[in-house]
Amino acid sequence: MEECLFCKIVKGEIPSFKIFENDRVFSFLDINPLTKGHTLVIPKKHYENIFDIPEDELKEIISVAKKLSEIIRKKLNADGVNLMNASGEAAEQSVNHFHLHIVSRYKNDGLEMNKWWQSKVSKIDIEQCLKELA
Amino acid sequence: MEECLFCKIVKGEIPSFKIFENDRVFSFLDINPLTKGHTLVIPKKHYENIFDIPEDELKEIISVAKKLSEIIRKKLNADGVNLMNASGEAAEQSVNHFHLHIVSRYKNDGLEMNKWWQSKVSKIDIEQCLKELA
Repeated sequence: MEECLFCKIVKGEIPSFKIFENDRVFSFLDINPLTKGHTLVIPKKHYENIFDIPEDELKEIISVAKKLSEIIRKKLNADGVNLMNASGEAAEQSVNHFHLHIVSRYKNDGLEMNKWWQSKVSKIDIEQCLKELA
Repeated sequence: MEECLFCKIVKGEIPSFKIFENDRVFSFLDINPLTKGHTLVIPKKHYENIFDIPEDELKEIISVAKKLSEIIRKKLNADGVNLMNASGEAAEQSVNHFHLHIVSRYKNDGLEMNKWWQSKVSKIDIEQCLKELA
């Protein structure tokens, strides 16, 4: 896509902190990092989200994410990672080119994701939901 | 693992709101949902996290997550999804059996993940980080 920020990064029209590239996948450091080593993994081809990325390319993305997680742990002494994807405007997706965040985590990094998460737990009728999904 | 909550769910020793099962993957509704349709996708075998789950099983997890995201969108009229994994205690992993969250998202669901996210952006020396990863 001509206008897409991440397509331009893949093509080298916009500079990035690239850490990995193969035929189909590109990976670079997030310029607004939550932590040291916060990384994005994207397909080189333009797909918007989880709904339109083909299964094969999605599998390659997750394989690369696993390998990069291991590298981040070893080289940056990270203690763990969070993987995150937002698919769709309602999911607060920022750039409309599929991207998987690897947020490197460190003991006492102060992110406190669970504090946010737990504050958002809702009373949902789960049995009703199960029926609707059947 | 004998003591593992999710292993017990897979074996049916603890009840769950199951929505999908095949040879290697099991999926059920989160009992502390952020939204209607909040789902967990797990391997049937016990792996702790992204670091020790084999690549093949990880790929199968993400394929199932894609299919279930589509089902959630169609059947529950969700407008999007967030995928999330926590790997490691430092990443605030709660149950030590690999699990991928599918958080179904709806217009105006009030989660405001980006508000939390943006409040956590740090000043990191990205160039230095890139050197350490090389």
